[in-house]
Amino acid sequence: MSESIFSITAADGAARTGLLHLPHGTVETPAFMPVGTAGTVKAMRPEALHRLGFRLILGNTYHLFLRPGVETIAALGGLHGFSSWRHNILTDSGGYQVFSLAPFRKISEEGVLFQSHIDGSRHTLTPESVVDIQVALNSDIQMVLDVCTGAGIERREAEEALDLTQRWAERAVRRRSKINEPYRGHLFGIVQGNFFPDLRRRAAEDLAALDFPGYAIGGLSVGETFKQYEATLTATAPALPEEKPRYVMGIGTPEYILAAIENGIDMFDCVFPTRAGRTGTLFTTRGRINIKNARFARDPEPPDPEIASFGGTQFSMAYLRHLFQSGEILGSILATEHNLRFMKWLVDSAGSAIRDGSFSRFKRRILEVYPP
Amino acid sequence: MSESIFSITAADGAARTGLLHLPHGTVETPAFMPVGTAGTVKAMRPEALHRLGFRLILGNTYHLFLRPGVETIAALGGLHGFSSWRHNILTDSGGYQVFSLAPFRKISEEGVLFQSHIDGSRHTLTPESVVDIQVALNSDIQMVLDVCTGAGIERREAEEALDLTQRWAERAVRRRSKINEPYRGHLFGIVQGNFFPDLRRRAAEDLAALDFPGYAIGGLSVGETFKQYEATLTATAPALPEEKPRYVMGIGTPEYILAAIENGIDMFDCVFPTRAGRTGTLFTTRGRINIKNARFARDPEPPDPEIASFGGTQFSMAYLRHLFQSGEILGSILATEHNLRFMKWLVDSAGSAIRDGSFSRFKRRILEVYPP
Repeated sequence: MSESIFSITAADGAARTGLLHLPHGTVETPAFMPVGTAGTVKAMRPEALHRLGFRLILGNTYHLFLRPGVETIAALGGLHGFSSWRHNILTDSGGYQVFSLAPFRKISEEGVLFQSHIDGSRHTLTPESVVDIQVALNSDIQMVLDVCTGAGIERREAEEALDLTQRWAERAVRRRSKINEPYRGHLFGIVQGNFFPDLRRRAAEDLAALDFPGYAIGGLSVGETFKQYEATLTATAPALPEEKPRYVMGIGTPEYILAAIENGIDMFDCVFPTRAGRTGTLFTTRGRINIKNARFARDPEPPDPEIASFGGTQFSMAYLRHLFQSGEILGSILATEHNLRFMKWLVDSAGSAIRDGSFSRFKRRILEVYPP
Repeated sequence: MSESIFSITAADGAARTGLLHLPHGTVETPAFMPVGTAGTVKAMRPEALHRLGFRLILGNTYHLFLRPGVETIAALGGLHGFSSWRHNILTDSGGYQVFSLAPFRKISEEGVLFQSHIDGSRHTLTPESVVDIQVALNSDIQMVLDVCTGAGIERREAEEALDLTQRWAERAVRRRSKINEPYRGHLFGIVQGNFFPDLRRRAAEDLAALDFPGYAIGGLSVGETFKQYEATLTATAPALPEEKPRYVMGIGTPEYILAAIENGIDMFDCVFPTRAGRTGTLFTTRGRINIKNARFARDPEPPDPEIASFGGTQFSMAYLRHLFQSGEILGSILATEHNLRFMKWLVDSAGSAIRDGSFSRFKRRILEVYPP
């Protein structure tokens, strides 16, 4: 049995709260993980993330592998030392970015050959090299290399991609088992299987047999409908070991997160809240707003009095709008912080509701302003 | 006599330290004032400026007048309420920006007609309206409208511009005298006269007769040589009342600031430290560096151990370089903060040296790494 890193503290139906014990401290779940693609959550200082209550953020292996390079990061104390973020880091395997960003890629049994979107240089990632890279980054949670597929493909193609993903998962587990202390990061498996429920269930069971300390559901948020998304969760989550943490990759809007929590998922990540912030879209408890709208030109209120957007200092919607109209960096900084604070409020409130046995009521309240 | 807002606390030759008493608190001089063009010092949160020790920043009347407009700012509690900056604000008159940014402008006895660089709309500024605008902004220090001239013009042209500037100054004083409490901001005069020492002296004496609470030297940093700059300071500063604060406009590099302090100047502002930061140029006690240089790729040291660049959190030059290579906003944030911290260190250290009687030695040390 793999070391247990998760304890469930409360449940309400399938939804649950828990504690995730990681090398850089304990994380409360449900947890939204801000994305720090290139070793920085865009527009946020690490202290600000800490102040907002985050204890686990993401890094993208693909981006860091290409720039500044793994050797540079390793020489500077791993991703924690390099970025000055002192809490936990989850890194993805790079697979998703290879499939979505690289101008050229070729999959073989061995791994994936691809071209950099920065300078066109060619590189190979294998299930083993991806483990080694994430060890060099000193990731607290690392992900296996998987084959990503889009919505709308044939069953045969989905099955072939899944079979290769499963063989790669076995190779990744073997590699991880050969890496000793001081590295203490945990390798998570990824359930694929496209939008075929039986493939998803089979993948979950096969991965469960490999006894990972945690499991992700991948291949979502790739263009499917909300119904397909929910159906995949319902088919997959119950097939995963109940006592292990579960992570849905690439999910970052209130309605998607709440559907995941309802299905017993504990972790989520997405660039959307930070990216939306940088373009002036704010999440609030009254729904989503575009701060550039002229109706905010003289609005003296903060974007959301309920979640005390900016800690000690209060900025009005009028000022935020002015910053966006003027193309000021402070607009991106404040809107990013606001959206991350909203996401933290959302998952923390979901946790409280689970402990109270009122999760359904909380979800209904949020869905009124964030309809699927 | 105008109300005294300045007390000199130490002197070393013509250089001096002082306290500037303003509506939003006392400011130690010599003081470098970060520039918040559009109601934000680019990439800085107001709390961060406070933490760095700044108590007086600049706003640009021209920019704020055009966007978001004076009525909007007034409706939101003036520039302090609008921006959430709780300390002092100095606003310029808009004259300099009209002369340097507007695609079209026409000077008359009445004032200056110009076209907005944003949308081409036409506006007029007069000595009186510029006072009124700065009252609406609730500026702690406001500046008179002046006629700006460049280096290399004929004496006759310089004299005509100066004469008009002096007539405008008288009109501004009359307007300010009619504005009562609760507005408590102070109107400063501006010495012009191009690079003709006798015109500068005459301007200083004429303005002194108007009994402003403080005086600026304008029309510098317009393309002149360092020698011309120093000669202008030497001709102008001694002709200004010794007991009033003196401000050189648009000066922001160590060698220019130290020359100003040596000549008895108390205040300086410039966008250069913040703008340079955003493009990766850092001021350090060992001289200026370009953080994008490949030699910093694996440098684990902070940019300047002597001035503890980032407070609690330490960021390496390798990480800063990576942020700039990747076009990350955090690069601009950290480099801006670093440069502002350096400027604060520079003026504070100059103040300590003045109190010790060692200003010349301090200046020589800095000029070794910042040669004029």
